[in-house]
Amino acid sequence: MSVTMTVDEDIKRVAKEEGLAPAFIERGVAEGSIVILRNKLHGWSKPVGVGKGLKTKINVNLGTSPDRIDYDLELEKVRLSMEMGVDTVMDLSTGGEIRDLRLKVLKESKIPVGTVPIYEAVCGLAKNGRTLLEMTKDSLFSVIEDHLKSGVDFLTVHCGLTRRAIPIIDEKRRATGIVSRGGSFLYRWMKHNNRENPLYEYYDELLDMTKEYNATLSLGDGLRPGSIADSTDRTQVEELLILGELVERARDRGVQAMVEGPGHIPIQEIEANVLLEKKLCSGAPFYVLGPLVIDCAPGYDHIVSAIGGAVAASAGADFLCYVTPSEHLGLPDLDDVREGIIASKIAGHAADVAKGVKAARRQDALISQARKDFDWERMMALSLDPKRAKRKRGAIESDYKKCTMCGQFCAMREEMI
Amino acid sequence: MSVTMTVDEDIKRVAKEEGLAPAFIERGVAEGSIVILRNKLHGWSKPVGVGKGLKTKINVNLGTSPDRIDYDLELEKVRLSMEMGVDTVMDLSTGGEIRDLRLKVLKESKIPVGTVPIYEAVCGLAKNGRTLLEMTKDSLFSVIEDHLKSGVDFLTVHCGLTRRAIPIIDEKRRATGIVSRGGSFLYRWMKHNNRENPLYEYYDELLDMTKEYNATLSLGDGLRPGSIADSTDRTQVEELLILGELVERARDRGVQAMVEGPGHIPIQEIEANVLLEKKLCSGAPFYVLGPLVIDCAPGYDHIVSAIGGAVAASAGADFLCYVTPSEHLGLPDLDDVREGIIASKIAGHAADVAKGVKAARRQDALISQARKDFDWERMMALSLDPKRAKRKRGAIESDYKKCTMCGQFCAMREEMI
Repeated sequence: MSVTMTVDEDIKRVAKEEGLAPAFIERGVAEGSIVILRNKLHGWSKPVGVGKGLKTKINVNLGTSPDRIDYDLELEKVRLSMEMGVDTVMDLSTGGEIRDLRLKVLKESKIPVGTVPIYEAVCGLAKNGRTLLEMTKDSLFSVIEDHLKSGVDFLTVHCGLTRRAIPIIDEKRRATGIVSRGGSFLYRWMKHNNRENPLYEYYDELLDMTKEYNATLSLGDGLRPGSIADSTDRTQVEELLILGELVERARDRGVQAMVEGPGHIPIQEIEANVLLEKKLCSGAPFYVLGPLVIDCAPGYDHIVSAIGGAVAASAGADFLCYVTPSEHLGLPDLDDVREGIIASKIAGHAADVAKGVKAARRQDALISQARKDFDWERMMALSLDPKRAKRKRGAIESDYKKCTMCGQFCAMREEMI
Repeated sequence: MSVTMTVDEDIKRVAKEEGLAPAFIERGVAEGSIVILRNKLHGWSKPVGVGKGLKTKINVNLGTSPDRIDYDLELEKVRLSMEMGVDTVMDLSTGGEIRDLRLKVLKESKIPVGTVPIYEAVCGLAKNGRTLLEMTKDSLFSVIEDHLKSGVDFLTVHCGLTRRAIPIIDEKRRATGIVSRGGSFLYRWMKHNNRENPLYEYYDELLDMTKEYNATLSLGDGLRPGSIADSTDRTQVEELLILGELVERARDRGVQAMVEGPGHIPIQEIEANVLLEKKLCSGAPFYVLGPLVIDCAPGYDHIVSAIGGAVAASAGADFLCYVTPSEHLGLPDLDDVREGIIASKIAGHAADVAKGVKAARRQDALISQARKDFDWERMMALSLDPKRAKRKRGAIESDYKKCTMCGQFCAMREEMI
């Protein structure tokens, strides 16, 4: 009924990182409200805890697409993520030598790495002139095993999208249908082959494989809404019900599991979405993609997602997947990645302040004190992006107390005229 | 007991703009839950409704400081604001020829203009080698009258900061004390002169002046918190209680009034802040500055404020004052203004989706349809910033259906392999 950690050391390291007692982490892991991301073969990675009572975590997506293949750029994103204090990266490559890149990402990364193995399975078929419809259970599972063996710490698997959902999807009530790549692959595969999703049918086998490497399943939401119009609909909730069952089954088998969430959700529905996940999935950690609170700001989806992520994590979501300004438009370059990371960190920090995470409150208190003291150097040092803050402020003037905003009329100056 | 609009035409124009019945606007104005911003002498300005049941409005702050005086730049900000569909601008100048700039801003602006007359009163003294401590009721009120006569549509007046607050302020429990310029002026003035705030003492006179020009009072929060540590504290709520009384007195005299709000507020306290304002101030429109949900992201306060503004307006705040990336660091340049406006518009749109404003929902539905149809031209046209979206997407490729994000594996392609 409970997950037994093979690596007690990981619990201690996570506890230290979070400033919490090891017993707290251990209890969270045992009851499934906390997962620790670290494949036993990814030994050089820092173990990262995700879940109830912990700091909100941030993930960076990276990877090639068939139309943009630049391995060095993707590895640069790994380095930038580590440098900026991101918690995990996911390699979502679908173009070029996917397996080679994955191995390089794992080697480079001192933070946990996630993947979506079905991408590689489908891309492998495409390379040989075949389509996803020809995927077999064995071809998919052998890719999954290869990912686990290479040290991947968490795997997105769309196990909750089953044949039961097909008639609901086929009602075509949705404005934007299926927007998850993995979800659309499996839907087409099930329809064409008239068979159950192998990730669901052979879920126990998947669990056993995952357990062997002490990896974590990230139960993907293949039916997440792709527009505000589709949010919190029957299609989405149908899948969530199954994900809840799968969380229970993972726990019964001693496998760590978290649940992925939307997507596009208007602000007033976010809290209910978090509640639903926590209730239906027995308190499993909630990993949200966004949520994007509006549809109409391409070019600024990092801000749209910062709003949704802050609200979601304040309401109890545990893990935020960053969104970059190039979302919906193309693959991000390094500047996009940087902007996406900062927006996500702001959202996570805002949520941590709300959740009462002491370190977050303390950072805000210290920077406010520095502001009161006109201690610009300290203010910069305590900010989320000191370089940018310094650039915006310009040269530190001889009268260091001034900024051009209010000048001599600054409300904080004791000697204000 | 109710506000009589002298200009029925304004009600009709606001109703048309909002897509609502004139009777709805009229009732809102009569009960004080809606104000219409337009000084009767600012005839070339579009009247803008702010309040319950209407679209969330966005304000842009501009103006000089003693350390940065560039009139053309500030006028360029007015033009940029109008071009980007901002609802109002406020000229907060404190440097150079303030009166001249105000007249130019009013002439240029086809949207309502707000000001904080006490800045000009204090700057006028400083110019003559005197300090704010020498301000008199008459010198302050003559500046206010000059603002009204020049056509200013709404005036921020810190009438709610009274002597009653002095002992609370002097307990010095706050991390960051007073951070409102107007608030700090009045606190120092009251302490030094041992007299009541003239904006409170002669409030009826202020009301009569305002009524004559059909202007709106924006009751300022001179004691707003300047850090997360100070949010929703006794000092802030003490002032809000008085602002509530002043709203009632404005209504009794037929003057339109709205209430300004914080400031720095953690995300989980925002809803309570909106509720408090609506309850204590009898449903007066709520105009929020931010709120900033964390203190430690200078350089990115437009994002921090987009989170707070979206949450506040979703909870019922009516009017968002934009915040730029240079907040806390210096005066914004045009790029900062542009970024601040977009972040604010995103927040306002997210809130309008939550509030059920039909036009907002419709825009999201249309862009999602365009996304489903791979109609990139239409998608760009429907986005909040078409230029930026186009730039991020790059050249429209020959195969127009593709973006580099997923390429041939896009979940939305019917013919996906």
